[in-house]
Amino acid sequence: MEVYNFGAGPATMPKQVIQQIRKDLPSYQGSGMSIMEISHRSKIFEEIIGTAEKDLRELLKIPNNYQVLFFQGGCTQQFTAAPLNLGKKYHRIALLDSGHWATRAGIEARLVGMDVDVLASSKESNYTKLPIIKKKPADTYDYLHITTNNTIEGTAYSKLPDVGKLTLVGDMSSNFLGQQYNINDFGEVMAGAQKNLGIAGLTIVIVRNDLLSNNENLPSMLDYQVFAKNKSMFNTPPVFAIYVAGLVLKWVKSQGGLVEMEKRNQTKSNLLYDFLDHSELFTAPVIKSDRSLTNVVFITGNQKVDQDLISQAASKGLLNIKGHRLVGGMRASLYNSMPLTGVERLVDFLEKFEKNQRGRS
Amino acid sequence: MEVYNFGAGPATMPKQVIQQIRKDLPSYQGSGMSIMEISHRSKIFEEIIGTAEKDLRELLKIPNNYQVLFFQGGCTQQFTAAPLNLGKKYHRIALLDSGHWATRAGIEARLVGMDVDVLASSKESNYTKLPIIKKKPADTYDYLHITTNNTIEGTAYSKLPDVGKLTLVGDMSSNFLGQQYNINDFGEVMAGAQKNLGIAGLTIVIVRNDLLSNNENLPSMLDYQVFAKNKSMFNTPPVFAIYVAGLVLKWVKSQGGLVEMEKRNQTKSNLLYDFLDHSELFTAPVIKSDRSLTNVVFITGNQKVDQDLISQAASKGLLNIKGHRLVGGMRASLYNSMPLTGVERLVDFLEKFEKNQRGRS
Repeated sequence: MEVYNFGAGPATMPKQVIQQIRKDLPSYQGSGMSIMEISHRSKIFEEIIGTAEKDLRELLKIPNNYQVLFFQGGCTQQFTAAPLNLGKKYHRIALLDSGHWATRAGIEARLVGMDVDVLASSKESNYTKLPIIKKKPADTYDYLHITTNNTIEGTAYSKLPDVGKLTLVGDMSSNFLGQQYNINDFGEVMAGAQKNLGIAGLTIVIVRNDLLSNNENLPSMLDYQVFAKNKSMFNTPPVFAIYVAGLVLKWVKSQGGLVEMEKRNQTKSNLLYDFLDHSELFTAPVIKSDRSLTNVVFITGNQKVDQDLISQAASKGLLNIKGHRLVGGMRASLYNSMPLTGVERLVDFLEKFEKNQRGRS
Repeated sequence: MEVYNFGAGPATMPKQVIQQIRKDLPSYQGSGMSIMEISHRSKIFEEIIGTAEKDLRELLKIPNNYQVLFFQGGCTQQFTAAPLNLGKKYHRIALLDSGHWATRAGIEARLVGMDVDVLASSKESNYTKLPIIKKKPADTYDYLHITTNNTIEGTAYSKLPDVGKLTLVGDMSSNFLGQQYNINDFGEVMAGAQKNLGIAGLTIVIVRNDLLSNNENLPSMLDYQVFAKNKSMFNTPPVFAIYVAGLVLKWVKSQGGLVEMEKRNQTKSNLLYDFLDHSELFTAPVIKSDRSLTNVVFITGNQKVDQDLISQAASKGLLNIKGHRLVGGMRASLYNSMPLTGVERLVDFLEKFEKNQRGRS
């Protein structure tokens, strides 16, 4: 059965990328070895990581005064690394509390001794909108942390908040490569790969040179300077994850880059939101201006109906539309690799489900 | 051309594992999704990580009072995590300086505020033997760190040093699953996956329960307690790397487990050492009692000859026998996946090369 995977991550990947990976096994480019067996110090891998960085720079228009670093693990580790590297003047960072991942970033920053001020929160509205800064923030923060797309709550910044002269750090994990931002607006961008850039186990950090300084007392694996100096190869990097990211970046380029990705994500999410807004059974709780293009959250208000819906959808190959365990309801993740057809099928299914429900009541 | 990859890591993998990975693409067990696209919260992945842990426990005879944790990244990160988690009473750890990776572990421990005492070093003998503790170590260390197999220098502990009541922490990266140890002799074992357990980006930590305690002020990604409580899924784990590790563990079991692995590694390394010890051109500098079964280091003493040898070997499909950039010469890594045939071919080649050299001089 053909399936559409609406999971939030690890998520669906481009079919062409999966095919290429298969094609490259067991011998990568006639080397007699698979990519998993190749040394990170080899010419083959230098070419792979070099091209991945070049393509990423091109797609995101990353200015030359920014480093592109390939880290192991996920963004949670960067919630520790960012304050350690950037929080050196005031030991004080600001946060916009837009939900779970922003909160987590604050917790980890406090664990490494930072003062964390929540400048605004949308907790009271159950995170169905983005927090709004009411007054100009003080200058005495090392940076302000935001989550550009809130995977769990289904909100996203289409327009960045005005933070004055403050350095902005953006956790872009779930709309990285899926929505256009100006890298110049950020001091640092962090993004886990398992949404739009391939597989879990790799996180990209894009950081402005002037924010790097010698951190002689930081653990090497958390030190941006060490990663910059060693071109992300202080120790063995996650070779396979970087190879997959390289293939995904080539695919994004071949499809028309970020302009096209954003356009498609807009089309896909519009289709779904439009249906939800006209539905009597379903509600999309997020306010229109703050809706995510990639994670569409919706509810019926009835847990039993939700469960029925989720399992019926699965039986039709529409997988993983269950909302995050923290918020319940449903969520459809429409990352770059989700084709329009998948969303059309989902809307079609939801429509029929709604009709059947009406017939019952 | 059939090749044999003697690289130190990322290293050769079992052919059956590569074939299985290929077979599992693009649809894992009829799910319609590849393993790379499957949620870490899914039943499918729970089964994978659960079975991997079970097989690892069985193969290594890991007692029930030890946790098995799956971490992102390599052992360098554990050089930070181990002192933060275990170095809480004395903030003082002991080290046996057996070479590069032991030294690195000491550096990272100091970076997080530990006092590090080198109890013994074999630096003066250029690390061609293991360091020997001359007197009983003090009790006032949180633990003693050793590198069970020194990938770069080609030494390994066949018998562990007598450390009295001290807790032993072993970096077992390059002979994990390749040589038998009693886990009970260690308080903690750490091992990067990219030698004998699959691909880079995953590190196994085996740690005794009584060494865990609430570390409320540690960053989550470095906190053993957080990983233990969350079954290594506090955040998204490296799904693909864990899946590959699971396949490798199944392969090790099917081949006869660690008894058989060690026997094979003994046979392979004996064959090579025996040739080297009888050669006039080559020398194996490590003393016999301390030789690694998995990383065989050898030299000619002539850089020009070394270079010729390395490139001639490569042209015959005997790849990556160049020594580590820090020590030069040659190194053949004979991990579990290296078949005896590969070593026979290498010895055969070295023999012919030596004859040709003799003809020239």
